[in-house]
Amino acid sequence: MASHTASLDTQTFNLETYLRDRKREVEAALDASIAVTYPEKIYEAMRYSLMAGGKRLRPILCLAACELLGGDPSAAMPTACAMEMVHTMSLIHDDLPAMDNDDYRRGKLTNHKVYGEDIAILAGDALLAYAFEFIAEQTTNVPANRVLKVVSHLGHAVAATGLVGGQVVDLECEGKPDVTETTLTYIHLHKTAALLESCVACGAILAGASEQDLAHLSTYAQNIGLAFQIIDDILDITSTPELLGKTVGKDVAAQKVTYPSLWGISTSQLKAQQLVDLAKSQLSGYGKAALPLIAIADYITARNH
Amino acid sequence: MASHTASLDTQTFNLETYLRDRKREVEAALDASIAVTYPEKIYEAMRYSLMAGGKRLRPILCLAACELLGGDPSAAMPTACAMEMVHTMSLIHDDLPAMDNDDYRRGKLTNHKVYGEDIAILAGDALLAYAFEFIAEQTTNVPANRVLKVVSHLGHAVAATGLVGGQVVDLECEGKPDVTETTLTYIHLHKTAALLESCVACGAILAGASEQDLAHLSTYAQNIGLAFQIIDDILDITSTPELLGKTVGKDVAAQKVTYPSLWGISTSQLKAQQLVDLAKSQLSGYGKAALPLIAIADYITARNH
Repeated sequence: MASHTASLDTQTFNLETYLRDRKREVEAALDASIAVTYPEKIYEAMRYSLMAGGKRLRPILCLAACELLGGDPSAAMPTACAMEMVHTMSLIHDDLPAMDNDDYRRGKLTNHKVYGEDIAILAGDALLAYAFEFIAEQTTNVPANRVLKVVSHLGHAVAATGLVGGQVVDLECEGKPDVTETTLTYIHLHKTAALLESCVACGAILAGASEQDLAHLSTYAQNIGLAFQIIDDILDITSTPELLGKTVGKDVAAQKVTYPSLWGISTSQLKAQQLVDLAKSQLSGYGKAALPLIAIADYITARNH
Repeated sequence: MASHTASLDTQTFNLETYLRDRKREVEAALDASIAVTYPEKIYEAMRYSLMAGGKRLRPILCLAACELLGGDPSAAMPTACAMEMVHTMSLIHDDLPAMDNDDYRRGKLTNHKVYGEDIAILAGDALLAYAFEFIAEQTTNVPANRVLKVVSHLGHAVAATGLVGGQVVDLECEGKPDVTETTLTYIHLHKTAALLESCVACGAILAGASEQDLAHLSTYAQNIGLAFQIIDDILDITSTPELLGKTVGKDVAAQKVTYPSLWGISTSQLKAQQLVDLAKSQLSGYGKAALPLIAIADYITARNH
């Protein structure tokens, strides 16, 4: 896992190489995290969505935050994998007919279209429970009290105080044309930013972060989380299904209030850039060690899928 | 919490008083565990099912196992509450239209009948995630490595290796008249016994259980879990909706294979008794401290609702 560390010694940090290497490491760890055994169908359903690709940004953020504070990223790998398990659970459940009713995700049929609604619900439940077991069981060379903090942080980020709360308000706002910016920000801070923040915070906690480190990194993550969501909403308007690997134009069709619908596309792009700048400013005290997190923040506004 | 300890000093342990006192303590702790805040609907949905009554046997088993090994039951209360949160999650999700499609539970409308399917799915997710946060955050005066073991044990009991695995096989067996005893036992060991075992094991772990203690207590819990399920299946045939607080006769109507359908009612009752005797024999080395767990095992075969 030390292959990219050398690149941090140069001024020209290569994000593309970094993301590619880290993604490969994460996917190998995810692949090894769940073996198919009896009853096969549930393990296959869990693996179907967990191994369906994606950028693996959440686990990569977790590893990068651990490394930022001088931790060994391998100490954060179980937590990084758990973050992707939790993210996958939220996608499987969000796609259900009773929720967003999506047929495609990352260019593939959604979990319930392949395995049925019952198994999709259970695959999400199993991924969520297993994420906590995986952190507690697989994390090595880290004091138990730090691992326990990670469990607590992740639980908080997923429960009604986090992801679930964001999804509930999002559902409540469906079909309402008068959603305010405050409510929209609540949704994104909870539905998107809370888990990103947990990825960064937990990686840092495993490396022994101080309260001040956590404050900087939480602000960093909340801001890239909001920027991430603004870009997502813009791409829903400007991108194609081929590029995005999912349905586009859904928000407009559903008359859903989004940042672009409130502010227009160019102002939304400007706000996303401001958020990314604010995120990066949190890392000014960490020198070269912050290059990966800084580059990832820039990458979020530059991405086209 | 020490009110009943005195009763352990007498030969005439009063289970009724014990269960009533413990249930009151558990319900007070559960009531305090979730406050209603924005977005209110999800917290109300979580509380609706969590506070819907029931015997609270799982948390009581957790507290009793902690106390059996000389632990302070208050150290196990957050875990006891978490067990009930997880149990509640499994009931909410099992009742969904895509699963068992039940309209009533404990004499009340099921969660999705009151709050809608989307909120019911999310309330389950939130209870599951919060259960882990609650253990990690609220457990006091216990070494962190023990609490981490509890997190791992509970995750294992809920994921595809436990509850979820049992539910998957149960769903696969629906409408099949040729389900074997082996498969039926797999279902009950996972769908019912795994969480009961986790309650007992985690209570014991928090008190500093040895591997030998855990082996005894796991066998105890697995056997009362199977006995519990046999009695449940018998009550589905012999009880009334008023007494049971839920629909009866469902298994026969669905031509579902159960222990009574394989063995008949009287043999099933005998087998349940044998399992309870085997469970109790695991506790022979613990003296009077085992009276609550012994009495609970007897209670399971004697109950009529």
